[in-house]
Amino acid sequence: MQINIQRLQENIQKLASFGMNSQGGIDRSIGSQADIEARKWLIQQSKNLGATVKIDGIANIYMNLEGNQKLKPLVIGSHHDAVPNGGKYDGALGVLLGIEIMECLVENKVQLKHPFQVLSFTAEEPNPFGISTMGSRSITGKLSLKELEQAYHNENKMKLSEAITKVGGDFHLLEKQQLSDQDMAAFIECHIEQSRNLYDNQLSVAVVSKITGIYREVIKITGEANHAGTTKMGYRHDALLAAAEMTLEIENIVLKYKRPDITGTVGILDVQPGAANIIPGISEFVVDFRIPDKTVQKEISDKLTQVAYKIEQSRGVCIDRTVLLDQASVEMDQEIMQTLASSISRMQPNKSEKKLKEQGIQIMGQSPILVSMAGHDAVHMSTITKTGMLFVQSILGKSHCPQEDTQIKDIQVAGNVLLQTILELDKELLDD
Amino acid sequence: MQINIQRLQENIQKLASFGMNSQGGIDRSIGSQADIEARKWLIQQSKNLGATVKIDGIANIYMNLEGNQKLKPLVIGSHHDAVPNGGKYDGALGVLLGIEIMECLVENKVQLKHPFQVLSFTAEEPNPFGISTMGSRSITGKLSLKELEQAYHNENKMKLSEAITKVGGDFHLLEKQQLSDQDMAAFIECHIEQSRNLYDNQLSVAVVSKITGIYREVIKITGEANHAGTTKMGYRHDALLAAAEMTLEIENIVLKYKRPDITGTVGILDVQPGAANIIPGISEFVVDFRIPDKTVQKEISDKLTQVAYKIEQSRGVCIDRTVLLDQASVEMDQEIMQTLASSISRMQPNKSEKKLKEQGIQIMGQSPILVSMAGHDAVHMSTITKTGMLFVQSILGKSHCPQEDTQIKDIQVAGNVLLQTILELDKELLDD
Repeated sequence: MQINIQRLQENIQKLASFGMNSQGGIDRSIGSQADIEARKWLIQQSKNLGATVKIDGIANIYMNLEGNQKLKPLVIGSHHDAVPNGGKYDGALGVLLGIEIMECLVENKVQLKHPFQVLSFTAEEPNPFGISTMGSRSITGKLSLKELEQAYHNENKMKLSEAITKVGGDFHLLEKQQLSDQDMAAFIECHIEQSRNLYDNQLSVAVVSKITGIYREVIKITGEANHAGTTKMGYRHDALLAAAEMTLEIENIVLKYKRPDITGTVGILDVQPGAANIIPGISEFVVDFRIPDKTVQKEISDKLTQVAYKIEQSRGVCIDRTVLLDQASVEMDQEIMQTLASSISRMQPNKSEKKLKEQGIQIMGQSPILVSMAGHDAVHMSTITKTGMLFVQSILGKSHCPQEDTQIKDIQVAGNVLLQTILELDKELLDD
Repeated sequence: MQINIQRLQENIQKLASFGMNSQGGIDRSIGSQADIEARKWLIQQSKNLGATVKIDGIANIYMNLEGNQKLKPLVIGSHHDAVPNGGKYDGALGVLLGIEIMECLVENKVQLKHPFQVLSFTAEEPNPFGISTMGSRSITGKLSLKELEQAYHNENKMKLSEAITKVGGDFHLLEKQQLSDQDMAAFIECHIEQSRNLYDNQLSVAVVSKITGIYREVIKITGEANHAGTTKMGYRHDALLAAAEMTLEIENIVLKYKRPDITGTVGILDVQPGAANIIPGISEFVVDFRIPDKTVQKEISDKLTQVAYKIEQSRGVCIDRTVLLDQASVEMDQEIMQTLASSISRMQPNKSEKKLKEQGIQIMGQSPILVSMAGHDAVHMSTITKTGMLFVQSILGKSHCPQEDTQIKDIQVAGNVLLQTILELDKELLDD
C-alpha cells in the first residue's frame, strides 16, 4: 500500500487556494475567510471518506475514522493556519498527509484496529490575537480560559471568542474537553524542517528526537547619556557600544560550539534616549538561545556572565540580566521514534553515517534524527500522549514565505513513512 | 575696573530661581511661565541701568546702553532658556556677564564710544517646538517664516507663533528685522565649555577658535530576516550584528586619532522586524561625527567605506549610507580671538604649553584655545558680524543637568576677561 502522490499534490494546491495572495503567499490567519473556507473543505474531504467530525471549544477539527476494536485513536495532526504571506506547506502538509493516509486506508478497504484520526489545530502560528499554538495549548491545560477570554485582535479589536465562534468553536465547552492520557494512543506530526539540515544532506525525511529548549533573557545596560559633541571619547559610558560588544560575543560563544542545534539571536534592541546628538545612556535587548540540553545552557549562561563582567569593567556600565523564558526541551516518544526510524530506513537511501555526524546529524538505526529548532503543537501533545514528529525537507530550509517549497519525491517518502508507521503502531500499541 | 563678583553671583541665583525644580534643575523652556518671568527680570535689570530695550519679532531681547559716538554696538549675548531639568549656567551665564559688564560701566561712569548691547536669544536649546538656536537663526536668515509658522508644541499642540506672542514677539516684524553687517560691530558669547578640557587642565577660560563641523549619516543595513531557531548560525545575514560591528569600528576609527576635538557617536539605532524569535533583517542607525576640518572628515568617511565593504562581504548584507547633515565648522574672528587671548594671558596663570599640547589644546599668545564641540548662537551670528566666543570651565564638563556647576573664581576670570575685551574692542573697532 502506497499513498497516491498525485491526489496529494492536488489537495496541496486546493488547500493553498484558500488565502493565496498575488505574491503566491498564503494569508490564512485564524478567523479569516480563508480559514473558514479551508476548514469547510477539510471537513468535507474527511466526511466524504466516512469520517465523523468533531469541532472542539477552541475550534480544533478532529476527523475520525472508526477502528474495529475499542481502542484509543492513532492521531496524525498539524495545523492549517498560516503566517501572513506564508507558505503552502508549513502545517498544511501535516494535515493533508493525514487525509491522504485516511483515503489510502479507505480505498484499500483497510480497517485499522485503532480509530484513525486526523487533527487540524486552530492558530498554531503567531497571529493578531497574540496567542500561538492556541489549539494545542487550550486542550492540554496550558492556556487558561481567562487568558483566552481576554485576548482580542490587535487591529480590529475583535474578541478572540468571537473569532472562535465564527470558525465553529465555543469557549464554554473547553473546560470539559481537556485531553488526558485516555484520549489518544499516539500523536504524530509531520512538518517541514524549516532549517536546512535535510536540504544540505539531500535527505527527504528525518525523525525528530526532541524539540529544542528556548532560553531568553532581557539584558539592560545602563551607561551615561551625554552630549555627543562635548563628551570626549575617553570619558564615555556608551550603553549602545556595550550592547554591540555583547551581541557579537553572544554570536562568538554560540559559533564555537559548531553545532547545528544551538543558536543565539538578538532580535530586539532598543536605545535610550535615542537622539543623534546624545550618547546612549540605556540599551536593552532580548537574546534568544535554542539549546537542546540544560548542561550547555548553563555553560552558555556562565560564559555570558563572564562577558558581561568584562564589559562592565571596560566601559563603566551596569548590566542587568532577567530571564524572560526558560522552556525546557521536549523529548519525543522512543517507541514512535523507533517505528518512524525503521520505516525511514526502508524508504530512504542510506547516507554515510560518518558524513552525517560531521554535519551534527545523529543516527537511529539507519535513519537520521534531528532536533526541532522551532516549537510545534507536538510540544503540548507530548504531555498527554506518546508523541512523535517527522521532518520533511524544505528547499533551502525556507519557511514562512511564498518561496517555501518541498519536492514531490520528498513528500512521497514522508507520506509512505507515515503510512507504514501508522500500520506498525496499529499492531504495536494494542495494550495501551 | 573689575566686575563685582558678589553681585553677579546674586544675579545668577536670582535668574536660576525662575523655573528651578525640586531637584535643583532648571525648567525654562520657550513660552513657559519661567521664561516669561526671566525675561521680565532681565529687562527690568537693564532698564534700571538706563538701557533701552527692544524685543524683536522672534522675541530676542536687545538691551542697549548708548555710546558717545555714532557707531555700531559691541554686543555680548547668549540665551536665557534651558533644556528640561537643565543647569543654572548654560546660556544664562553669558547673558548675566553682559548685564554685569553693563552695570560695571554704569557704576564706574565709563561711557564707551560704541553702544554696548546685551542680547538674550529666544530658544537656543532643543525645545518642544523642534527648532533650536531659534532666535539667532531667525534673525540671520537661516529660518524661513514658513518654517516658523508651521511649528507647534509636540505635546499641547500650541502654535509657535502663539508662544512667541506670549513672550512679546510678533512674526510679522521678522522680515524687516533681518540683521546685516550694518547692525553690530562685534558679537561675543561666553558659555560654559560643556566638555572637560578646561577642568582637566585646571584652566578658568579659553578662547574658542572654531565651532566644530557636524557630519551625520544615516546608515541602513539590509540583511535577511529569518527564524531565530531554525536558521543555522552559518546561514545568517544578521543586520543587527553587522550594525554592532560597524558601531564598534566607528569608535575605533575615532579613538585612533587621539584628539579631543574629534568624536563619533551612534545615538539612534533601530532594528526590524524587532521580534525575539526573528533574526533582524534591517538595522538603521545614525552616526554623528564632530570633526573640525574637512580633510579629516574625508579621511574618516573613507575609512568608513572600507569598513562597510568588509562587513558587506563577511556578513552578506547590503549597507546604504546617506548624508543627513554636513555642517562645516565655523571659524571665530581672528581680531576678537586675539583681543580675548591677550586679556586672558593677563588674567589667567600660564600653563606649560607642552603639557597643554599633549592634551590636544592649542595656544594663542599665552592663552589656551579650544574648538567648541557643541553648536551655539555664535555660529549664526558669525555670518553677520565679527564673532568670538569665550569658554569658562564647567566642573567635570557637566551641562544640561542639575549638577552643572562653575566655580566662582572661574566666573570672575571670565567676567574680567570679557570686560577688558570690550574696553579693548571699543578702542580697536572704530573704523568698522
